Amino acid sequence: MAETDQTPPPADQLDALNLSDAVQNHSFSDRVLIRSIVGRPDGGAGLAGQRVRAGGWVKTGREQGKGTFAFLELNDGSCPANLQVIVDAGVAVLGKLVATGTCVVVDGILKVPPEGTRQRIELRVEQVVHIGEVDPAKYPIPKTKLTLEFLRDHLHLRSRTNTIAAIARIRNALAFATHSFFQEHHFLYVHTPIITTSDCEGAGEMFQVTTLISEAEKLEKELIKTPSPSEVDIEAARQLVSERGEAVKQLKAAKASKEDISASVVELNKAKESLSKLEERFKLTPGIPQKDGKIDYTQDFFARQAFLTVSGQLQVETYACAVSNVYTFGPTFRAEHSHTSRHLAEFWMVEPEIAFADLQDDMNCAEAYVKYMCKWLLEKCLGDMEFMAKNYDKGCIDRLRMVASTPFVRISYTEAVEQLEEAVKGGKKFENEVEWGFDLASEHERYLTEVKFQKPVIVYNYPKGIKAFYMRLNDDLKTVAAMDVLVPKVGELIGGSQREERYEVIRERIIEMGLPLEPYEWYLDLRRYGTVKHCGFGLGFERMILFATGIDNIRDVIPFPRYPGRADL
Amino acid sequence: MAETDQTPPPADQLDALNLSDAVQNHSFSDRVLIRSIVGRPDGGAGLAGQRVRAGGWVKTGREQGKGTFAFLELNDGSCPANLQVIVDAGVAVLGKLVATGTCVVVDGILKVPPEGTRQRIELRVEQVVHIGEVDPAKYPIPKTKLTLEFLRDHLHLRSRTNTIAAIARIRNALAFATHSFFQEHHFLYVHTPIITTSDCEGAGEMFQVTTLISEAEKLEKELIKTPSPSEVDIEAARQLVSERGEAVKQLKAAKASKEDISASVVELNKAKESLSKLEERFKLTPGIPQKDGKIDYTQDFFARQAFLTVSGQLQVETYACAVSNVYTFGPTFRAEHSHTSRHLAEFWMVEPEIAFADLQDDMNCAEAYVKYMCKWLLEKCLGDMEFMAKNYDKGCIDRLRMVASTPFVRISYTEAVEQLEEAVKGGKKFENEVEWGFDLASEHERYLTEVKFQKPVIVYNYPKGIKAFYMRLNDDLKTVAAMDVLVPKVGELIGGSQREERYEVIRERIIEMGLPLEPYEWYLDLRRYGTVKHCGFGLGFERMILFATGIDNIRDVIPFPRYPGRADL
Repeated sequence: MAETDQTPPPADQLDALNLSDAVQNHSFSDRVLIRSIVGRPDGGAGLAGQRVRAGGWVKTGREQGKGTFAFLELNDGSCPANLQVIVDAGVAVLGKLVATGTCVVVDGILKVPPEGTRQRIELRVEQVVHIGEVDPAKYPIPKTKLTLEFLRDHLHLRSRTNTIAAIARIRNALAFATHSFFQEHHFLYVHTPIITTSDCEGAGEMFQVTTLISEAEKLEKELIKTPSPSEVDIEAARQLVSERGEAVKQLKAAKASKEDISASVVELNKAKESLSKLEERFKLTPGIPQKDGKIDYTQDFFARQAFLTVSGQLQVETYACAVSNVYTFGPTFRAEHSHTSRHLAEFWMVEPEIAFADLQDDMNCAEAYVKYMCKWLLEKCLGDMEFMAKNYDKGCIDRLRMVASTPFVRISYTEAVEQLEEAVKGGKKFENEVEWGFDLASEHERYLTEVKFQKPVIVYNYPKGIKAFYMRLNDDLKTVAAMDVLVPKVGELIGGSQREERYEVIRERIIEMGLPLEPYEWYLDLRRYGTVKHCGFGLGFERMILFATGIDNIRDVIPFPRYPGRADL
Repeated sequence: MAETDQTPPPADQLDALNLSDAVQNHSFSDRVLIRSIVGRPDGGAGLAGQRVRAGGWVKTGREQGKGTFAFLELNDGSCPANLQVIVDAGVAVLGKLVATGTCVVVDGILKVPPEGTRQRIELRVEQVVHIGEVDPAKYPIPKTKLTLEFLRDHLHLRSRTNTIAAIARIRNALAFATHSFFQEHHFLYVHTPIITTSDCEGAGEMFQVTTLISEAEKLEKELIKTPSPSEVDIEAARQLVSERGEAVKQLKAAKASKEDISASVVELNKAKESLSKLEERFKLTPGIPQKDGKIDYTQDFFARQAFLTVSGQLQVETYACAVSNVYTFGPTFRAEHSHTSRHLAEFWMVEPEIAFADLQDDMNCAEAYVKYMCKWLLEKCLGDMEFMAKNYDKGCIDRLRMVASTPFVRISYTEAVEQLEEAVKGGKKFENEVEWGFDLASEHERYLTEVKFQKPVIVYNYPKGIKAFYMRLNDDLKTVAAMDVLVPKVGELIGGSQREERYEVIRERIIEMGLPLEPYEWYLDLRRYGTVKHCGFGLGFERMILFATGIDNIRDVIPFPRYPGRADL
C-alpha cells in the first residue's frame, strides 16, 4: 500500500464523492485523483460503493475471459500506486484500451475485489469517457524495461515511466520541504539574477548571454535584401543637399514669396534627411560590431558583457545585510566540458544567507536543513522511497533515517587530514595525495563519511589558499571559516562559509588573490557601511536528490538535463 | 502595531528567552528576531523584564539629554516595525551608533516605555556587542527621502530602505503562497529548462546562450602566444615522417635486430604524432567558427544554437501528460528593447498545467489561485500592506479584499468587444481601434476591469488569428479556448488556454501558421500517444506584485532588474 506525498483528504470528505460533486476534489478537473483512492491508509477499501470518474495512463492492460473483459492498471502520476480498472466488452472496444501508454477516462463504481488479490479496491467501469490511443508498434517507450540512458533520448515521454515519475514526486517534495524549512525559520526567499555582469568566482567558466549574434544575422539578411549605399550614392545625395541649399539661398536673395521659400526649404530638408539615412546605412557593417579590434559590447543588449550566473551568493548577501535571513533557490550554470555523472551545465542551487551569524550557526542551519528534508521524505514520500529502495538502492531509506536522526560529526580540515593520513598508514590507497594545504578529493570525502565515520561529516576551517576570497580569515591567518557537509553516497552535499565582514581584510584578500577591485566595489560597500557578521552555504539540489534516491546519474534527477552537446527541448 | 508574515512564536516560548537560550529562536543566530518582539499581538509588552540580544540597522538615531543617552530605531528586516533601543553614554560612544545605516548588536532588558509613547516595548541596553559603523558623509542612501528611481542605481543597498524591504517581504509571501496553493491542490513543482533549443512562440525575441565568443577569444589569445605552424613547418614534419618510415623499411629489409627496428618505429611514431598535432593546430583559425558562410553551431557548447527560455509551457506539458497536475515557477526572458515600466528582460512566471481539464477548469484554477494570494497577503503581510497603502497606493488593501471576495466576471471575447463598442458609442475614447478580430489593448482591458465591471474579469474564446497555435480550436472554427484574467491596476495578470489535444488539428494549425513541423515533433508526440485534454496558464509574478503593492514600475518589485542597457551586479 502506498504512502503518498500529501495527506489524503479525510474519509468523510471522500465518502461524498460521486460524479456530480467530484469537482470538489480540489484538482480543478472532473476526475478524482487516483491518490485520493489508493493513497488512503485503507488502500481505498472504505470507498467501496462510491461512483467516481478516474483518468490516467494505462501501465499494463490485458484482455481476459476470452475477450469478455479487460484489466487495466491505471496511473495518473498523483502517487506511485495504480488503480485497477475492469472494463466489460459491452462497454468499450477492449483492444483500444489495453496498450501501454493509452490515456483513458472512465466512470464507474468502486468495489472491493475478490479475496486473494493485491488490490484493496478496484473500479468497475460503467462508461468510457475518453480514449487517447497508442499504437504499440510505434510507441517510443513500450512496457519493456528501459534503461535510464535510453530514456534520456526521450525526455518528452520519460516522465510516463514509474522511475522518472517517482523522481519527479521526490524532487517536488524536496523543493517544498526547502521552502517550508526556510519559511518556518523566517528566511525570505530572494530571487537573485540569472543574467549577471559579475563573475562571482572569477573562474570564467560561464555561458555568455548576448543578442549580438542574432542582431548581426538580422542585419546581414537585411543588407542582402537592401544593400548598403555606395560612396557614389552618398556623394550624389550630398550633391543634392548642396544644390537645394543653394536654391533656398537664391530664393531668399531674390526675395521670393514666403510660399516659394518654404516649399524649397521642405525640399532641402527632405534631401538632408535622405542623406543622413544613407550615411547611417553606410556605416552598417555586417558581422558582430567591433571597436579597437575587440567586440564592442556597448552595442550588446545590456551595454556590457553578460553571463549566466554561477551562484546567487554575492547578490543575496546584499539582502542578508539588510533583512537578515534570506535564501535563494534557483538555476545556476557552468560551461564546463565535463561529461561525468555528477555535473550538469544547468542545475538548481539552494543558498541561504544568515546575518548576525557565524560558522557555528552556519553548520547548525545546514544540519537542521538536511535533517528536515530527510524527515520530510520519510513522512510524505514513503511510497516513492520504497519504489526507489526496491528498484535502485536498497539502502536509501535507511540512509535517510540515519541522517535524520544522527548528529553530524564535525571535524576541522586539519583533523580530517590527520584521519586520512592515518588511513593511508593503515594501508588505505587513495589516487590523490593527502597533504595539508591540498583540497580534499571526492574519494577522501567519501572515505570520511562512508568508511571512517559512517555518518554525515562536517569538515571546517580549510586552508585559505584553496578557498574563495570572501571566506572569513581565521585568527591563525592560515585557515578560513569554511565548511563542507559530506554525506554517504554523494560526498560533498553542501559548501559554505562565514563571510569576511572586515573591510580591510577582504580588500586585502581580493588584492592578494590577484582579482581586480573595481568589480567588487559594490560588494565592499556591504563592509564599508554598517557591516555585519554573516554566513551562508550552497546546496546542490540535484545532489540532494541523488543522495535521497540512490540514482547514479545526475541527468536522471532533473527533468531536462543540459550537458555538453545536449539541450533537448 | 505590525502584523508580520508568519505567526509569531507563542508567548510561553518567548517568555523563556534570555541570552543563554536565545539560540532556540530558530533563526540560527544568537540574537532574537525583532519580529518576535514587536511583531507579537501585544506589540511586545508581555516580554517586559526579559533579557535579550537584538541586532539590526539603525533607521533613525539621536542623542538626547545633552548626550547622556541615545534613542535608536533598530530594524533587522524581519518585520516592518522597528525596535526602540535606548543606550546610555556610559555603555558606548553614542556618536558611533546614531548614524542611519549603522549595524549594531546589543544586549539589554526589555522594558515598557513611559506612557504616551508610540512603542509598547523598548530595549534598555546593558552592553553593545557589535558596531558596524557608517560615515554619514559617504553613505550612498542617507535618511532623506530617496526616489525609487535613484535607488535603482544602488541595487546593492536599496534593500535597506523601508520600501524595498517591504516589497521583499511581500514578494516572499506571494512566492510561498504560490507553492502552498499548488501543493495543497496536489500539483507537482517541475523545473523546466532555462536554456532551451525550442523557440516556444516562434517570436524570436530570445537571448542567445553561447560559449563560441569566449572560446574564440581564448583561441585568439592562445594563437598570439603560440602562433599556428606555417605550411613550411608542416612540410618539414611530413618530410621527417617519410624519412623515418624509410628508415624503418630499410632496417626491416636489412633484417636488423628487433631492438633496432622497434627503436626506429618509436621514432617514426613520434614524428607522426608531432605531424598530426601540427596539422591540428594548422586548422585553427581565429574568430567564431564558420561553415558554409554561416556560424558553425555544431561547435557551440550544446552542439546547436541555444537560447534562454521565454516560457516553460511546452516543456511542462510533457509532465502534465504523464503526472497530471504540475506547475513551474521560474525565470523567463525576453530580449525586447522595451523601456516601459511594465517590461523586464528577466522576470519570473508561474505556469500551472492541468491534465483531464478544460477551459472552465483553467478559469476556476486561475481565479482560486489569485484569490488565495490576496487572502494570504491580508492574513500574513498586513503590516507591509499598510505601509504600502500609507506611502504608495491607498487603495491597495481594499483592492486585495475586493479580489479575494468577489466572483470574477466571465465574458467571451465577443461580448467584451460588444461592451467596448458600446462604450465608444457612449463617448469613451480609446487610442486603439475596437474591432472583432483585433487583440484587446491594455486600455481596453483596464476599461473592462476598472470602469465597466470594477472587479476582476476573465475574457475567454479569442479569435484564433491573434492567438498561439497550441490553443484549442473551438467548434465555431473561428475562436480558440483561450482566456485572460484582467485585474484593476495592471490589466492582464494571467493568460491561459485549453491546449489543442487533437493530433490532426494541431498539426494543421502549425502548418497554417507557417511554422516548421520538425521542431514540434516531440510536442506532437504528446498528441500521438495517449493524448489527454489539458489546459494551463501563465501568471507574470512581478505583475502580481505590482497589483498587490500599487508600485508603478516593475523594476522596483524584482530584486535585480534587467532591462536594455542595465544588468547591475
